[in-house]
Amino acid sequence: MPPLPDLPDPAHPAHDSMLSRKFGREVANYFSGSPLNRVSFLRTDHSFISKALVHPSTSFLLLNDLAPLAADPTKLAYAKYDDVRKLIGDNPFEKTEAELIKQYNSSVTLPLVLFLGLDERMKDGFEHGIYSGRPFFAVDVTPKGTVEKEALIVIEGLKKKGLQFIEGRMHMSLNAPEAGIYAQARAVLDWNARNPFCGGCGQPTMSINVGTKRVCPPTDFASLSTAQGGATTTLATPRERAACVTRKGISNLSFPRTDPTVIMAVISHDGKRVLLGRQKRWPPYWYSTLAGFCEPAESVEEAVRREVWEESGVLLGRVVIHSTQPWPYPANLMIGAIGQALPDGEKIHLEHDPELEDAKWVEMDDIKEALRVGTSGLGEPAGEGYVEGNLRLPPQTAIANQLLRAVAEGFLEVGEVSKI
Amino acid sequence: MPPLPDLPDPAHPAHDSMLSRKFGREVANYFSGSPLNRVSFLRTDHSFISKALVHPSTSFLLLNDLAPLAADPTKLAYAKYDDVRKLIGDNPFEKTEAELIKQYNSSVTLPLVLFLGLDERMKDGFEHGIYSGRPFFAVDVTPKGTVEKEALIVIEGLKKKGLQFIEGRMHMSLNAPEAGIYAQARAVLDWNARNPFCGGCGQPTMSINVGTKRVCPPTDFASLSTAQGGATTTLATPRERAACVTRKGISNLSFPRTDPTVIMAVISHDGKRVLLGRQKRWPPYWYSTLAGFCEPAESVEEAVRREVWEESGVLLGRVVIHSTQPWPYPANLMIGAIGQALPDGEKIHLEHDPELEDAKWVEMDDIKEALRVGTSGLGEPAGEGYVEGNLRLPPQTAIANQLLRAVAEGFLEVGEVSKI
Repeated sequence: MPPLPDLPDPAHPAHDSMLSRKFGREVANYFSGSPLNRVSFLRTDHSFISKALVHPSTSFLLLNDLAPLAADPTKLAYAKYDDVRKLIGDNPFEKTEAELIKQYNSSVTLPLVLFLGLDERMKDGFEHGIYSGRPFFAVDVTPKGTVEKEALIVIEGLKKKGLQFIEGRMHMSLNAPEAGIYAQARAVLDWNARNPFCGGCGQPTMSINVGTKRVCPPTDFASLSTAQGGATTTLATPRERAACVTRKGISNLSFPRTDPTVIMAVISHDGKRVLLGRQKRWPPYWYSTLAGFCEPAESVEEAVRREVWEESGVLLGRVVIHSTQPWPYPANLMIGAIGQALPDGEKIHLEHDPELEDAKWVEMDDIKEALRVGTSGLGEPAGEGYVEGNLRLPPQTAIANQLLRAVAEGFLEVGEVSKI
Repeated sequence: MPPLPDLPDPAHPAHDSMLSRKFGREVANYFSGSPLNRVSFLRTDHSFISKALVHPSTSFLLLNDLAPLAADPTKLAYAKYDDVRKLIGDNPFEKTEAELIKQYNSSVTLPLVLFLGLDERMKDGFEHGIYSGRPFFAVDVTPKGTVEKEALIVIEGLKKKGLQFIEGRMHMSLNAPEAGIYAQARAVLDWNARNPFCGGCGQPTMSINVGTKRVCPPTDFASLSTAQGGATTTLATPRERAACVTRKGISNLSFPRTDPTVIMAVISHDGKRVLLGRQKRWPPYWYSTLAGFCEPAESVEEAVRREVWEESGVLLGRVVIHSTQPWPYPANLMIGAIGQALPDGEKIHLEHDPELEDAKWVEMDDIKEALRVGTSGLGEPAGEGYVEGNLRLPPQTAIANQLLRAVAEGFLEVGEVSKI
């Protein structure tokens, strides 16, 4: 079973969740807690980025089809500038963004280079004004397009050094701070890869702001866009492209997408039982909290009530938000809540939205026992002392586990709704 | 000044926030609290939707370029089926979605019809199994494409009845339950209008699931896609379109986008002062809480700490989520938090990310006074008793106001961080 998230370094100013964990009620969930300071305002600082890219201390996290380069399943491995130079070019950020947009040629593949942030704990020589620390970048080394050969050379070179790309859909074995670094890289590289075209006009787009924004350039050196198929040639002077609404003002289409979701531990009106549900594909006896996507124009609290009612028929009174967890598969933000059923709203009805195979009320003592011996990753065996047939629950890296732990520890004072 | 959000009807099962407001600590912010039950699982139920569309009780909210039809600025007006029939067709949902996708012709404009939900309080004859109430739809009547003329006829007909489309960017004058209905309609219609093309392959997409999903059809009766320009003809048999990744499995590109944002009232370590910031374009003396977008793969708590540090230099210990507010301009979910500064982290530094013209610590008594007499909408005068030169703050319809109200009322027990 993976360890609980490590505490971020308390010396790190922007990620000070240790204090709040100790003195507040905040839980730092797995995939949060990256030690990097994103210094997001420096992404458009041309001189900063071009200097950071080539600094000898700089670390590059490489992703091949979203699988991260690693030393072993618990620890990422980082490449150096010289490892990726042949793929990304000597320094793509020596030019300004305006120049890069002018040179846009949709038939040429530019490997995605993403600036992740600075690890301010690592004082090994990189400085820029008042900012210092080791720069971290991510590079998409998936062999594709016009750089397929160069990408394969990079990949083979690193494999020869004994490194590997960790395959598989989930990466819950990584140590917690690096899980945060990987989550950021995966989420943003995946967003870029999913959105090669403009949703507003259908033309190919290009990455700017070191991987964190996509724009729809007004001109193109390619004779045809790849969306049209057919043979593309490179023009001597760029052609004008069709007008696009995203070139006027600011459009959310230009920025990475994050999908807010709700996940909730629901307690009975008297606080003695917890509502759990299971999906058909899960192992026997395995249950978890209910969850679902937020819809447009509903509050988190409304989404919690709607999802619980749609999936289980249960009606909620109080809803309190507990903590949140980034979930980069592909782009979710899980907002964890604790809800309390209304006294006359506890009857289970699975047929509104038949997503769940089962939902049931479980006594708090059974929850506590399962948290002690019944947790594991989905494909893994339960803990020592688990008795076959008893309840199984998700591992500590899942926010569902943390929410259940919170209700088992009495997060909500109970009895208020039942006093009505 | 607009009124505080009304309480939703307590008889309404899925939106029971009255109880939680009364007995919990949840604040129902403006734009939440729609009285409609979305019954989202019925959107794919062909027989339900085609029956609901033509029922005599059914209400249609019409949006012209996102401006809603209204009786006056505080109250929406609804059209009936006969008002929109000529624009949307007799019953576009009589056919199954599979049939509609087979008939796809990208050169024909299909007006967006969105199912909003059922108002279960209105027992005026519509029933479908165990579900009943008045059906609500929204229709995009913006004159465009091949239905420009039909849309103009609908618009003129309603204007003759003395109705109007409320122009302007914000619609904060609407009564609170209808603000929730409008927010849902605006958010989803706008998402459809912004995304006529597939981000994955660049080809035109079509709306399904009664306005709540877009798919990239495998065939097209139009000879060319509109992205390519040129003259389009309608083919006798549809042409195959290029492959698209969104046709395999489930892609988030097919579903409406909601952008999570953070907004936070920050108190000093001793709880005696509040951090406020102002943008240059605001009226004199006007300040508000800090705010910003969540980034990919960061928790809400991390986003709060990052944004506060980037915009003001202040370092936070505890972060607690207070409540949330949908904000349909265009697609934000505002997650409201309260943060507490670290004892040695209160120095203001505006030059990291120079978004704010000013940020300052304000004494709690001045916050209380401004909440009493200094609040208003951005273009409106302050309240009675306001003294020129004193602090001005956003109105009660803004979550910023609710967060400041919460800290003024002692939402966080203070002193914990300062005990370190």
